[in-house]
Amino acid sequence: MKYIAHINVMPLKELLDPQGKAVNNSLHNLGLEQVNGVRIGKHITLNIEAGSKDEAQSIADNACKKLLANPVMEQYDISIIEG
Amino acid sequence: MKYIAHINVMPLKELLDPQGKAVNNSLHNLGLEQVNGVRIGKHITLNIEAGSKDEAQSIADNACKKLLANPVMEQYDISIIEG
Repeated sequence: MKYIAHINVMPLKELLDPQGKAVNNSLHNLGLEQVNGVRIGKHITLNIEAGSKDEAQSIADNACKKLLANPVMEQYDISIIEG
Repeated sequence: MKYIAHINVMPLKELLDPQGKAVNNSLHNLGLEQVNGVRIGKHITLNIEAGSKDEAQSIADNACKKLLANPVMEQYDISIIEG
């Protein structure tokens, strides 16, 4: 069966996010003062061929651990939907 | 009231995504052959101070149009939750 994994890889809350900070300042300069706490990470979608949703979840988790996320600086969350 | 906007900015479906293609190949080399169609974009979270969910949505939309997304190459979706 086909599944689609939506993965968000974000900088850890404890760490500074210079890119987010820069965007935050730019938004203020553009007049959007109501915005703060901008954080920027990656959104990754994968098509996965798997026998079950649990298997797809474990493949996506494996992809994050092996390649997509750096656990020293980033956290990730995965959501799987049937494709 | 405080809201949190989760914004995904992804390359348009019609366009090649070289970064996604490279990650796709790397995942295959790592033995994750069940994965394909990798696409990589940005995930952005904003804290927004607004009077209503609709107002927060419109501020986030404004931020995307003015700064966060390039409509020539990217599409975006926004989800707002109460923070």
